[in-house]
Amino acid sequence: MSKVKVGIIGAGRIGKLHAENLVKLHRVELKAISDIFAEQVREWAGSIGIPHVTDDYKEILQDPDIEAVLICSPTDTHVPIITEAARAGKHIFCEKPISFQLEQTREALEVVKEAGVKFQVGFCRRFDHSLKKAHQTVKEGGIGEPHILRITSRDPHPPGKDYVAASGGLFFDMAIHDFDMARYLVGSEVEEVFAQGAVLVDPLFAECGDVDTAITTLRFKNGAIGVIDNSRKAVYGYDQRVEVLGAKGCVTVSNVTPTTAEISTAEGVFRDKPKYFFLERYNEAFIQEIADFIDSILFDKEVPVSGHDGFQAELIAMAAKKSFAENRPVKLEEISAVQSV
Amino acid sequence: MSKVKVGIIGAGRIGKLHAENLVKLHRVELKAISDIFAEQVREWAGSIGIPHVTDDYKEILQDPDIEAVLICSPTDTHVPIITEAARAGKHIFCEKPISFQLEQTREALEVVKEAGVKFQVGFCRRFDHSLKKAHQTVKEGGIGEPHILRITSRDPHPPGKDYVAASGGLFFDMAIHDFDMARYLVGSEVEEVFAQGAVLVDPLFAECGDVDTAITTLRFKNGAIGVIDNSRKAVYGYDQRVEVLGAKGCVTVSNVTPTTAEISTAEGVFRDKPKYFFLERYNEAFIQEIADFIDSILFDKEVPVSGHDGFQAELIAMAAKKSFAENRPVKLEEISAVQSV
Amino acid sequence: MSKVKVGIIGAGRIGKLHAENLVKLHRVELKAISDIFAEQVREWAGSIGIPHVTDDYKEILQDPDIEAVLICSPTDTHVPIITEAARAGKHIFCEKPISFQLEQTREALEVVKEAGVKFQVGFCRRFDHSLKKAHQTVKEGGIGEPHILRITSRDPHPPGKDYVAASGGLFFDMAIHDFDMARYLVGSEVEEVFAQGAVLVDPLFAECGDVDTAITTLRFKNGAIGVIDNSRKAVYGYDQRVEVLGAKGCVTVSNVTPTTAEISTAEGVFRDKPKYFFLERYNEAFIQEIADFIDSILFDKEVPVSGHDGFQAELIAMAAKKSFAENRPVKLEEISAVQSV
Amino acid sequence: MSKVKVGIIGAGRIGKLHAENLVKLHRVELKAISDIFAEQVREWAGSIGIPHVTDDYKEILQDPDIEAVLICSPTDTHVPIITEAARAGKHIFCEKPISFQLEQTREALEVVKEAGVKFQVGFCRRFDHSLKKAHQTVKEGGIGEPHILRITSRDPHPPGKDYVAASGGLFFDMAIHDFDMARYLVGSEVEEVFAQGAVLVDPLFAECGDVDTAITTLRFKNGAIGVIDNSRKAVYGYDQRVEVLGAKGCVTVSNVTPTTAEISTAEGVFRDKPKYFFLERYNEAFIQEIADFIDSILFDKEVPVSGHDGFQAELIAMAAKKSFAENRPVKLEEISAVQSV
Repeated sequence: MSKVKVGIIGAGRIGKLHAENLVKLHRVELKAISDIFAEQVREWAGSIGIPHVTDDYKEILQDPDIEAVLICSPTDTHVPIITEAARAGKHIFCEKPISFQLEQTREALEVVKEAGVKFQVGFCRRFDHSLKKAHQTVKEGGIGEPHILRITSRDPHPPGKDYVAASGGLFFDMAIHDFDMARYLVGSEVEEVFAQGAVLVDPLFAECGDVDTAITTLRFKNGAIGVIDNSRKAVYGYDQRVEVLGAKGCVTVSNVTPTTAEISTAEGVFRDKPKYFFLERYNEAFIQEIADFIDSILFDKEVPVSGHDGFQAELIAMAAKKSFAENRPVKLEEISAVQSV
Repeated sequence: MSKVKVGIIGAGRIGKLHAENLVKLHRVELKAISDIFAEQVREWAGSIGIPHVTDDYKEILQDPDIEAVLICSPTDTHVPIITEAARAGKHIFCEKPISFQLEQTREALEVVKEAGVKFQVGFCRRFDHSLKKAHQTVKEGGIGEPHILRITSRDPHPPGKDYVAASGGLFFDMAIHDFDMARYLVGSEVEEVFAQGAVLVDPLFAECGDVDTAITTLRFKNGAIGVIDNSRKAVYGYDQRVEVLGAKGCVTVSNVTPTTAEISTAEGVFRDKPKYFFLERYNEAFIQEIADFIDSILFDKEVPVSGHDGFQAELIAMAAKKSFAENRPVKLEEISAVQSV
Repeated sequence: MSKVKVGIIGAGRIGKLHAENLVKLHRVELKAISDIFAEQVREWAGSIGIPHVTDDYKEILQDPDIEAVLICSPTDTHVPIITEAARAGKHIFCEKPISFQLEQTREALEVVKEAGVKFQVGFCRRFDHSLKKAHQTVKEGGIGEPHILRITSRDPHPPGKDYVAASGGLFFDMAIHDFDMARYLVGSEVEEVFAQGAVLVDPLFAECGDVDTAITTLRFKNGAIGVIDNSRKAVYGYDQRVEVLGAKGCVTVSNVTPTTAEISTAEGVFRDKPKYFFLERYNEAFIQEIADFIDSILFDKEVPVSGHDGFQAELIAMAAKKSFAENRPVKLEEISAVQSV
Repeated sequence: MSKVKVGIIGAGRIGKLHAENLVKLHRVELKAISDIFAEQVREWAGSIGIPHVTDDYKEILQDPDIEAVLICSPTDTHVPIITEAARAGKHIFCEKPISFQLEQTREALEVVKEAGVKFQVGFCRRFDHSLKKAHQTVKEGGIGEPHILRITSRDPHPPGKDYVAASGGLFFDMAIHDFDMARYLVGSEVEEVFAQGAVLVDPLFAECGDVDTAITTLRFKNGAIGVIDNSRKAVYGYDQRVEVLGAKGCVTVSNVTPTTAEISTAEGVFRDKPKYFFLERYNEAFIQEIADFIDSILFDKEVPVSGHDGFQAELIAMAAKKSFAENRPVKLEEISAVQSV
């Protein structure tokens, strides 16, 4: 069986994660990784058998042997790299969000389309067994027409100030996964958004013009309504639950715990907190997401998460941001209108 | 031990329920019940030992022996009966809502205050063991400062058209319990409301100018934010869950099932749906609510749910209705302003 | 509707419990209660409206008005009182066990049979919603032919020395409920028993010639095998779980908790211990058991737990005791053989 | 970092599983695999990058480069291969059971001891997160002195006749994992065993002189008592639960499911069956067991599951077999006595 030759651009936490998953896939050859701090990753790269490390991502794009790239660099570099990679004929896996500027996202997607390469966005949660089952249940009519969507998505602790300042804000950095999940679960586009936010966890969010706590309500084109609650700090761990109520039933996904051990004492019954954070909870989903991307190349299949999916999630994030700023419901078409100017 | 002598006004479903609970309390003597269809309840009343049945509630108010009345008649009769009962020196337990008109509610409460009688509103959920524990946990600081409140409150099936037409609408008839629960759990007044609604269950709601599905977001004075989702039809039964996330933890209350039996077969693992409806789920809460009302009279203690609690819940319902109608967040002070004119 | 007139013999914990449940049933008139310490119960009896209290149970048996008696006196008085009551034509509800001597139990049951009165044994667990559902599931073929039965039955704390000394031992006093449950769930008689025991909780059990911890394995006539584990002390509360594995599935019943509240903190997820003890867990079952006994009189129906059921459970307890003493499996027919001499 | 060079003997289901896990470990070099049907595994071996495939395991033992071997061949070949491998100075990982003959097991372990090589037995369940947490909880005194052990261990479906005929029987083939788990959880050796068995699933077990359903009770040296129930067919999937009740609490481990999705409909609440079988449930445990074996070589640490552990589990299995055959409790010292002749 032929192997897909891959390069990774960006060796931060997420780039390394993908690298470690890729080297275990028999149908992949991970040829190179680039990072602006190449020296700092050289030893790690060697230990898992990546033959080439560079501080210039262009080397990867120019390597005619490499068929596909994973873009794991900072968000503000995504659009230029996507553009170059697509023009170089590389299939592209890009971490979310594609960009903070919808117009730029759209332009990048157009270049991708012209180039005819595969393009997948890193919404890893779609590959989680439980969330996939919820999606399938709704899709196959298992709960009838969807009426109410509920997502709870909370981090175990807030990131540092540097991260927050560059993150694009809670709606773009954190809730964007939930906006994608909302579309994925309900199977309909979002029409209108109302977002409430608050700074309750740490004043640093206010200093960065951001919030750390939010409730976003969504109105879908198919008539369903939904709500997402986000917090940057759930002291008991990464809280990831979804629920869709429909005309004929309700599907819920609850948290995953490291063990099923339960201890009963005179004080009460104690069990594990949820798995610590996204690396633990979505560990298998990250593996599956990359395996599916590789398969879409090998067998020329559609990618499971398209550029359209990336764009729509950003559109909702933009509407949420505007809604919060203006304390009023915002229609997605208002955003598109602004953008198309 | 002396017994409190009680009369009940209104022998519909809820009046009968209170009657059957009262006759089992050793410190109560249920002396009379009134209903405009007195003949239809006479046999039932005899079977549980209520000595007097009348079609004129004034007979109850005029009986000098009777110390307390339960007002279980239709909502539009509450205010005049409260006024008369208070003036007759009777302690009053009144079903929710007190009225559909905030100004009338306020006036009734003023008469009650002048008369110096006890006045309790029928928010029975506050007496549920689980919800009470959630309330206590928050109050005692068990989860730190509250950040996010989440309530799911869904009925197993929609009521009929007659009921809907006279109900005051989803926000006044159904969500009002959740508005009270929100205040009870978070321990703060509500400041602003945004309500989304939809008709997804049955077009009859649209015909009555009502909705059957709603998501209401709340902003509390203490900074917390919250969300309530309501549906008139959860086919799997009465869905009653609450959750408060705080700075130091999270408390959740899940559904109660008729049995804990679970059946595992080749198809999957099956367990009971939640208890069917409010009579089953809040059975013990109904008993406790009345027992506490009786104790507040016997031992001259404060009632556990005051007229202020009844008024606030109506205020939120009013704001939710307005918010839904105008598709914008509504501050509670806007409502008060209108009312004080 | 006519009322069944009832007397209670023995006003200890269980006698009082039945009395308080009976006075709430509209189709019962509780006429009298007897206790050798009559003075100590007189005030309580008055408070719940029992008109007559006596220290001589024969007064109850001689009252021609009384149709049924509840025998709640110490076990060693059961057989003579059953005999007298049956000869006096009273229907009988008798607490478990009927006696510690199988031959005496048999003789008492023969008198009952001759007298033609109703006779019900106090195996209250059969009336628990969850256990009844497990029974029904097995009976209706929901899990196919039963293969393995598992019962966990543990008390929250050990009784005092006086109680233990007079209890008949763990197998007769505590496990007898589980032996009945075993027959009820599997739907087959027991053929052979092997019992292991240990004193791990408190040396007082050894002093009384008893054990506080036991594992009893059962072989049923239908081929199924089963196991019961008992402890006199589960610090986390009354632990009552059952499970039947069959050819087509498995039914399990788990514990019931006072609330469904769950608190998640940085330390873990905490929830309630099981309901404290049998009064809490089987509260509704006690009510139902007496209501069903009353109905079997009123409507001349079969009692739900017969003298045969009482006898079989004692037979298993006897075999368990012998098995533990001799550290070998014991067939029930060995016990019968001894008895029939 | 240096790599441990490994060979695998036997490329059946379990040999392949270990191979696929080994090739993903960066500190291992899997050099060769042997199987008597070498041709049938050559393609698979190539696809995961094993350079050498042979039908003669002696080639592996003679390769001076190979430091460690995994013995995954049929049980009756274990002892001679262990002996040869130890004498060749190879560290050994051996699948369970070491043999069906205690005397042979003992002799093999003596050779291992003389050779001074590492020797680990394949009791993979000890590496499961949940079971390890239960073990740690008991060990650290979290539940006080152990009183009662309960293990439920059921397969999703019975193996075929060929497998059963060569398996050594339920106690040696299946329950042996549970016997090891019993010692691991309680932290004490077993003293006496009573085993009940039945053929309820499939008559083929009777034809092979085996049982398909069993309940085994254990008495431990520290005074605790325990019970294991086994079935070859739980239609709802692989059922793996353990529980230890102690003086200060109880620790339980429940099943693991593929997803946490739950679907509520008018019929009830449905969730996933447990993970299908041991490959799914103990997937991570298999990886960890081999990683720990490799580390014990690399860092010269004690192996986590010793030859003594393997021997003790076989001793219990032997006692269980004898107990079942003779329908009486059997002390382990009886078995040792027989063996030492």
